[in-house]
Amino acid sequence: MEQRLSIVTLVVEDLPRSRAFYEQLGWSAADSVSNDQVVFFQVGSLIFALYSGAALVEEVGMARAEGFGGITMAHNPRGKNDVDAVLAAAKEAGATIVKEACDVFWGGYSGYFKDPDGYLWEIAWNPFFEILEDGTCKLPD
Amino acid sequence: MEQRLSIVTLVVEDLPRSRAFYEQLGWSAADSVSNDQVVFFQVGSLIFALYSGAALVEEVGMARAEGFGGITMAHNPRGKNDVDAVLAAAKEAGATIVKEACDVFWGGYSGYFKDPDGYLWEIAWNPFFEILEDGTCKLPD
Repeated sequence: MEQRLSIVTLVVEDLPRSRAFYEQLGWSAADSVSNDQVVFFQVGSLIFALYSGAALVEEVGMARAEGFGGITMAHNPRGKNDVDAVLAAAKEAGATIVKEACDVFWGGYSGYFKDPDGYLWEIAWNPFFEILEDGTCKLPD
Repeated sequence: MEQRLSIVTLVVEDLPRSRAFYEQLGWSAADSVSNDQVVFFQVGSLIFALYSGAALVEEVGMARAEGFGGITMAHNPRGKNDVDAVLAAAKEAGATIVKEACDVFWGGYSGYFKDPDGYLWEIAWNPFFEILEDGTCKLPD
């Protein structure tokens, strides 16, 4: 796993309220890829996302209170084939695989592991977010 | 608040175990600033930190299970004077101030707020971590 963090996602109860909070603090969401389930902000080399709690239950099959604190981290490898390799390396290092990688509805390929303290990492190949040479995970313009 | 994330910190139970996990995945900790309470990794424009749970209770006066999920985010403004301004802006936007800014033992000046969903942000001026012009929060070499 390359030494980089691609996305930090906060699961939120009321997406418009949370979006308004960060916008009032001076941040600008990326309108082209945001919708009523998820809002993305480019923050330097990574993406900060606000995700509707209801949508996450569908995707991970888990609510915020059930087994994780509401923040997930994502590492996006450069190729689709790398996802399984990263998950295998994490398992080898002692992680628990929460969800084996599979093709997902939004067009990517992803799986989840929990680190030794139970923190949730998504390992995702995402054809819509470019990984630059320096490792930046970049929202489309 | 500039649109950037400076540090993501995971509160961990057993720091050597967690450090070994991320190192086995291929990451390298910054030895010059890591110690037996905290371990830092440079990940692109931000810093990824593992923090001993016992140390966090002392600093924030709160354990992982009490009111937050164990992950904190930090935004490091460019100047010490900016810390109070960011906390005031967060309060104005609806955040709860958890700890007013004060000088802290490690030589910085920091305070904490909770966003509308209770996620914890530290706003910290840290004279040891440089903020580059592009917003990168950089560990010393």
